[in-house]
Amino acid sequence: MPTDIEIAQAATLQKILPLASRRLDIPEDSLSPYGHFKAKLSLDEVKRLSGRPDGHLILVTAISPTPPGEGKTTTTVGLGDGLNHIGKQAMICLREPSLGPCFGMKGGAAGGGRAQVVPMEDINLHFTGDFHAIGLANNLLAALIDNHIHHGNALQLDVRRITWRRVVDMNDRSLRDINVALGGPGNGYPRQDGFDIVVASEVMAIVCLATSLADLKRRLGNIVVGYTSQKQPVTARDLKADGAMAALLKDALAPNLVQTLEGNLAFVHGGPFANIAHGCNSLIATQTALKLADYVVTEAGFGADLGAEKFIDIKCRKGGLKPACAVLVATVRALKYHGGADPKKPGSDSLEALEHGLENLRRHVENIQSHYGLPVIVSINRFDKDQPDEIALIDGFCAELGVACVLATHWADGGAGAADLARAVVEACEQGAAKAAGLYADADSLADKIRSVASKIYKAAEVVFEPKAQAQMLEWQAAGHGGFPVCIAKTQYSFSTNPMLRGAPSGHTLHVRELRLNAGAEFVVAICGDIMTMPGLPKLPSAERIDVDDGGRISGLF
Amino acid sequence: MPTDIEIAQAATLQKILPLASRRLDIPEDSLSPYGHFKAKLSLDEVKRLSGRPDGHLILVTAISPTPPGEGKTTTTVGLGDGLNHIGKQAMICLREPSLGPCFGMKGGAAGGGRAQVVPMEDINLHFTGDFHAIGLANNLLAALIDNHIHHGNALQLDVRRITWRRVVDMNDRSLRDINVALGGPGNGYPRQDGFDIVVASEVMAIVCLATSLADLKRRLGNIVVGYTSQKQPVTARDLKADGAMAALLKDALAPNLVQTLEGNLAFVHGGPFANIAHGCNSLIATQTALKLADYVVTEAGFGADLGAEKFIDIKCRKGGLKPACAVLVATVRALKYHGGADPKKPGSDSLEALEHGLENLRRHVENIQSHYGLPVIVSINRFDKDQPDEIALIDGFCAELGVACVLATHWADGGAGAADLARAVVEACEQGAAKAAGLYADADSLADKIRSVASKIYKAAEVVFEPKAQAQMLEWQAAGHGGFPVCIAKTQYSFSTNPMLRGAPSGHTLHVRELRLNAGAEFVVAICGDIMTMPGLPKLPSAERIDVDDGGRISGLF
Repeated sequence: MPTDIEIAQAATLQKILPLASRRLDIPEDSLSPYGHFKAKLSLDEVKRLSGRPDGHLILVTAISPTPPGEGKTTTTVGLGDGLNHIGKQAMICLREPSLGPCFGMKGGAAGGGRAQVVPMEDINLHFTGDFHAIGLANNLLAALIDNHIHHGNALQLDVRRITWRRVVDMNDRSLRDINVALGGPGNGYPRQDGFDIVVASEVMAIVCLATSLADLKRRLGNIVVGYTSQKQPVTARDLKADGAMAALLKDALAPNLVQTLEGNLAFVHGGPFANIAHGCNSLIATQTALKLADYVVTEAGFGADLGAEKFIDIKCRKGGLKPACAVLVATVRALKYHGGADPKKPGSDSLEALEHGLENLRRHVENIQSHYGLPVIVSINRFDKDQPDEIALIDGFCAELGVACVLATHWADGGAGAADLARAVVEACEQGAAKAAGLYADADSLADKIRSVASKIYKAAEVVFEPKAQAQMLEWQAAGHGGFPVCIAKTQYSFSTNPMLRGAPSGHTLHVRELRLNAGAEFVVAICGDIMTMPGLPKLPSAERIDVDDGGRISGLF
Repeated sequence: MPTDIEIAQAATLQKILPLASRRLDIPEDSLSPYGHFKAKLSLDEVKRLSGRPDGHLILVTAISPTPPGEGKTTTTVGLGDGLNHIGKQAMICLREPSLGPCFGMKGGAAGGGRAQVVPMEDINLHFTGDFHAIGLANNLLAALIDNHIHHGNALQLDVRRITWRRVVDMNDRSLRDINVALGGPGNGYPRQDGFDIVVASEVMAIVCLATSLADLKRRLGNIVVGYTSQKQPVTARDLKADGAMAALLKDALAPNLVQTLEGNLAFVHGGPFANIAHGCNSLIATQTALKLADYVVTEAGFGADLGAEKFIDIKCRKGGLKPACAVLVATVRALKYHGGADPKKPGSDSLEALEHGLENLRRHVENIQSHYGLPVIVSINRFDKDQPDEIALIDGFCAELGVACVLATHWADGGAGAADLARAVVEACEQGAAKAAGLYADADSLADKIRSVASKIYKAAEVVFEPKAQAQMLEWQAAGHGGFPVCIAKTQYSFSTNPMLRGAPSGHTLHVRELRLNAGAEFVVAICGDIMTMPGLPKLPSAERIDVDDGGRISGLF
């Protein structure tokens, strides 16, 4: 089997404007091309489509992953191709890849094998520039804050209480904790600061949740950047930053259209990580896709404890989305890992390990059914080395649980390999059994919301708040932000905050280290355990293998 | 007169692919569209064109400017339109605007009035993403440096001797001098660091001087990022960063094609500042334009002491370009300022001030003739309030100097307003009197090169090197970098390093504070006086006025 990039580069792509015109009846002037194979759909067209009825929305989520991921994006693409393969009209909604994992450990995020969106290199590198625009809007606000303080600080911002951080789309641990404005009076007032990765920025969340340019600007203006010495919040609007930020983000808000290797259409738009942010592609892309197609397949990042929970409690709640069912991606590799297999110990990846690991699958299935209110289909993303008895074991376990289980081979076979999965999904959509509802009511306190997620989804025994977090919650509750949903930042490797606690742990403690008010995105982030909003590069970063030849052909992306 | 952005938004643009096909015979598949009105010319097409003969190259430069600038870009666009207006086939080569001045004080850089390149907002904001790619490539290298040290530092980089800085495309003084990697062992080894603005990055210079992807990668690999404790240089190639950096920059190297308000074609590509960097658009764009048009008008930033000197000594020297003549842009406003007029003192902008200020013009004219070897045409960029006796005074002064002087009204009248200028330029090109040569020989020492520029162009009495700068020069000389040209970073407001010293000062001292080796760009930067490679925002930044309405129309850009 050739590599992902080799498959992608060997593909013959169709020009995106005529393809969109033919397949979705989108006028070519409603699309702004970025090269011949990528385009942005105009916000005017988005508005024009809004009166149409919605198609079925299918969420692709996963069991708790291993570091390389279990193929959620690949399954989303495969299922979209599979639905088209069996004669349905389907679109795909994905997140845009971040350069952090691309240069770091995990690699790109445009699917894999024969289930990819293309042009793969473009999507994984700069794409249409959305992340650059988001980073710059974030950093413009940061520059305006320090500039305001430097030039007299009329708003009386307290340099000890600036909460807005700078960002870069890079894994760069040395920027987590920095001192800025050193070197004398000409350089401003020294203070402690730090960079997050772009995907953790509140601006990313705002772009992913805004429903129009007006809504985008309103949310940007609401961003709280810090506090005065009297502890009064100061907003981006107070700094007159919202207009310029919105101007920088005007094109970033328009959904990006690309194609799969099989010529089916996909929006790839917005890309918050699901461990440190809300983990779903843009609401505007999903809403628009629902107007354009009968079936829309979307993903939510990492395991169903993270992305899927935020999909339900943030994206669907805010956007009025009604998902029809969920596909839970599982791999033999990850299940064995949850059952105690150790990649370094040969033989430890036994059938017994697999059996134990199925508890992780059970927990996710039950959560999706009971707490997210969605019918589940388990999709085994097949790897070459998987054995028939391993597949049979998962199959039998799902039968006992009473959920459908499908073996999907889209990685090797494209849409045809996900035809069974597509048929199972169509059946679930047609049964209409979904009763999606959030885990908590808007009126619950912020603390109770965090406790709801912790007890229902993570099966934690208790939630411990740092005193500072406790004080913040009371303050924000009093300031009228209590109605916001919560966005929990924690490791993706475990239901707990300890990445080593695999399987289906219960009785653990959720330690809430720090809270961040996202008054523009309209949720509160709870940073739990050791999770960091700026990752680091590994000892052998993928960047070292990436290259481009004299003719412009890129290699080493995966 | 409506504002620049109102004029630009009222214009009816032609789709760029058919326009380029019709006007320049470029096949549509050789262009990659970015929206309907911007495109990148493929590097394959650049190579295919390279065998053709060259057109005439015209440099637009200026007297020492006031802060808002004297209309060099506007004149470049006007002259390009003017040449087409009088029936010549002409192209324009400009630099891409930086977001620093756009959000700061000076505003955008796409021309003005009826002499603009469009779409103005796109060009001034993200354009085709080149600056984002350059910033990211720069910061990837920075992340790889700190990551290498964190993971064992096999190359034995000395954290006290890292010379590579991070960048952002923003005026952000608080990032000039920072401490990074604080917060404990997980965040790396603490060290002193700083951010420059993207336009000062060596990566920007490399993109602007590289002649192919292979040359780009070679230069990126040669970047010296710092030194070991034994003072041995460590390069980007040693860190295996060059391949990924080149992959990030592959599209940024392809020239961007747009149109003027009159439908003439312009490359807008690369954008180093002329005060802190080498100040010219990309060599690849200029070389390609010379193959496509009979006349190519290009600009070099700020006054002729800065951009034009670097154009001759760096860009032409490296790229084998043979400019035919120079247009020196002057304004009544700036000449009065050089003669002592004070914007805050009514009546100080007298005819007498103008007369005194003409010494600045004389110095630039003489420098261009004697030291750059080019015929000069003085172009007065007319402002509405200019008086006939003021224009007559300049005219008479130029007659005495023996140089052509043309009143140009392209700002108000478009190409027709630059028809006289165009005719004067054609005449100069046809006379073929240019004997462009660098100020110094490659074999001169770095110190002598700096002294040449200081004595010949700035009329400085002496050059004082900080002891550290002195030591660096000897070291680089010994390491074989002595053959590089020098790129002097100094204020644009004076021939000296003191921005208050207007007119045509002589006998001053050039104080060389710091040197930076750009082993990839293949020049040495000499930082003189108080100039900083990261500007700051003013008290009332332009960003506060920029806005976008619900329909996506941007306002407040100028």
